[in-house]
Amino acid sequence: MPVVDIHTHVYPPSYMSLLRSRNTVPYVRTFPDAPDTSRLIILPGEDDPATPSTARGRPVGPEYYDIKQKISFMDTHGIDVSVISLANPWLDFLDPSEAGETARKINDEVNELCEQHPGRLYAFGALPLSAPAEVVVAEIERLAGLSRMRGIIMGTSGLGEGLDDPSLDPIYAALEKHQQLVFLHPHYGLPWSVYGPRANEYGHVLPLALGFPLETTIAVTRMLLSAVWDRFQSLQVLIAHSGGTLPFLAGRIESCILHDGHLAKDEKLEGRRSVWDVLKTNIYLDAVIYSEVGLKAAIDASGKDRLLFGTDNPFFPPLGGETEWLSVKTNYRAITGAFGDDADGAKGVLGDNAIRILRLSS
Amino acid sequence: MPVVDIHTHVYPPSYMSLLRSRNTVPYVRTFPDAPDTSRLIILPGEDDPATPSTARGRPVGPEYYDIKQKISFMDTHGIDVSVISLANPWLDFLDPSEAGETARKINDEVNELCEQHPGRLYAFGALPLSAPAEVVVAEIERLAGLSRMRGIIMGTSGLGEGLDDPSLDPIYAALEKHQQLVFLHPHYGLPWSVYGPRANEYGHVLPLALGFPLETTIAVTRMLLSAVWDRFQSLQVLIAHSGGTLPFLAGRIESCILHDGHLAKDEKLEGRRSVWDVLKTNIYLDAVIYSEVGLKAAIDASGKDRLLFGTDNPFFPPLGGETEWLSVKTNYRAITGAFGDDADGAKGVLGDNAIRILRLSS
Repeated sequence: MPVVDIHTHVYPPSYMSLLRSRNTVPYVRTFPDAPDTSRLIILPGEDDPATPSTARGRPVGPEYYDIKQKISFMDTHGIDVSVISLANPWLDFLDPSEAGETARKINDEVNELCEQHPGRLYAFGALPLSAPAEVVVAEIERLAGLSRMRGIIMGTSGLGEGLDDPSLDPIYAALEKHQQLVFLHPHYGLPWSVYGPRANEYGHVLPLALGFPLETTIAVTRMLLSAVWDRFQSLQVLIAHSGGTLPFLAGRIESCILHDGHLAKDEKLEGRRSVWDVLKTNIYLDAVIYSEVGLKAAIDASGKDRLLFGTDNPFFPPLGGETEWLSVKTNYRAITGAFGDDADGAKGVLGDNAIRILRLSS
Repeated sequence: MPVVDIHTHVYPPSYMSLLRSRNTVPYVRTFPDAPDTSRLIILPGEDDPATPSTARGRPVGPEYYDIKQKISFMDTHGIDVSVISLANPWLDFLDPSEAGETARKINDEVNELCEQHPGRLYAFGALPLSAPAEVVVAEIERLAGLSRMRGIIMGTSGLGEGLDDPSLDPIYAALEKHQQLVFLHPHYGLPWSVYGPRANEYGHVLPLALGFPLETTIAVTRMLLSAVWDRFQSLQVLIAHSGGTLPFLAGRIESCILHDGHLAKDEKLEGRRSVWDVLKTNIYLDAVIYSEVGLKAAIDASGKDRLLFGTDNPFFPPLGGETEWLSVKTNYRAITGAFGDDADGAKGVLGDNAIRILRLSS
């Protein structure tokens, strides 16, 4: 039974060099008081000079960039194939003039890494979203021809204005035309103030556990409200973290649309497809939800043939340094628990769905 | 089979007078260009002078304050008993010096309204949270002695600093001592900026469908992270909108806590109860989720004996003025669908659970 991990991140060496060459967020920095470790600082809120250097961002070691560690992680956890992707914030921050070239270089390097591990690694590419639309479209076309690329990973900001931005239409059209799936992943979170006056006592729990999923859900809901899937009816989007909160809130979203006097008059939404229709036709969900309750809701919302196993490696490592990761075990356990006697269902989520949807056998 | 609606709001006449007497948010205002209708403006964002008066806030008519309309709504929808509550923003905005007296007056009036409809109306009281703690505690004690009161409704701001504020401890202690259930309800939402540049094109969907549930989930997670339920192990909280997003995200919240190096060193959380334990022991959920998918997740998370039917009346009226409300039908349908052949389970959610938990037969 093949196991495929479709949510697993890599910072390839050229991306690490890029982050090391910068001196503002996002960047990798080695502080003078801890010269033996580097820290990855990806959000403005993580770079407060008042925070001790040993608590700023997160330590970044070979688990981020050494592909041998990825293979070793896969072996430990019974994962046959990984579809790797650049982690946030991808290439969103690049100067428009260099974005196209940087994207080509990094995507080529990732594709080559995958070719060096035949049958074990595939990848989602990264787009130069700060560049002019034609550069982005050209990279989508180019990615479709790379041997190990199986779609693209994208954040929620799009060209900077969100995924309901009409300027994204040529990009959605190119993704649809080349059958490139979008792996939609959060990064920007919510303003820190929403977490309240004691939020800094709670580590990273509030932004990671709640901010990320809501960022994702807002982005998808804006796509629904701007009729993206009515214009691009075969655009396929794989949503990180089992859709953020989409499976649970889909009913409330649909009901709020149906009860909104303003939207009732919006011609763009006349004859629109319902949230449920899009969930079952255009949306795939990963199985990174850490509970049977959540996983069952994801299955109910999108269908068991549209759910794909993932680990979020190298994030959420075990605090005690255990070889076997609790975060991975929890997601495995949720699949076993949710499917019970339905071995085929579990097999689908663990690997068969990914092989079919991402054409991994080809 | 008795049907009990535990999520249904009333603005009693004295509360309406209070809102009419004010000239800043929250307030009720009649604009000179539309003298025949009043508008209820409850959020700062709804009071932009650039917005035409006919689009500011929402029209407020007798469905908000005339109890006859509530009874008529109940009759139309087969609801035998309603546990009414003041809607947001309750008494959060009152001057500390007047809050205690206003709370007593409004709670007495609501209790009297219920007494005028024996067997059909009960209520959750409102607390004078801006007043000194002893005034709040005194009102909790007083409410416990009122004939139709069955708990209190509270927003997410608490005394202004959120529900993880240690200053709430005497209030939680009083609620626990008098076995007063807290109906936790959102109001404040998220900063408008999180919804993106085109958010004003989408009516109220983003803040209502996503902001409200996340506000609720943040509030509950802060209670978990500050060990409220470890200190007050029998504090009972009924969470609006099926817990916001709690059932779906509980696994992610628990996993983020278990993987957070900072929290691992927090003595307050040593031996803490897990999110799942609290969900099944201290949390009740309403069934206002508008989908079978969401309802099943709520059942899986808390248990079918902890879920209670609600309508959110007078909000989400049908756009076409139909007598039977789509929002109510959708929630009825979700219960029928989720329980299938389990008639007892459905009966529990529709009424039996509320009767037992809120002692409605007494």
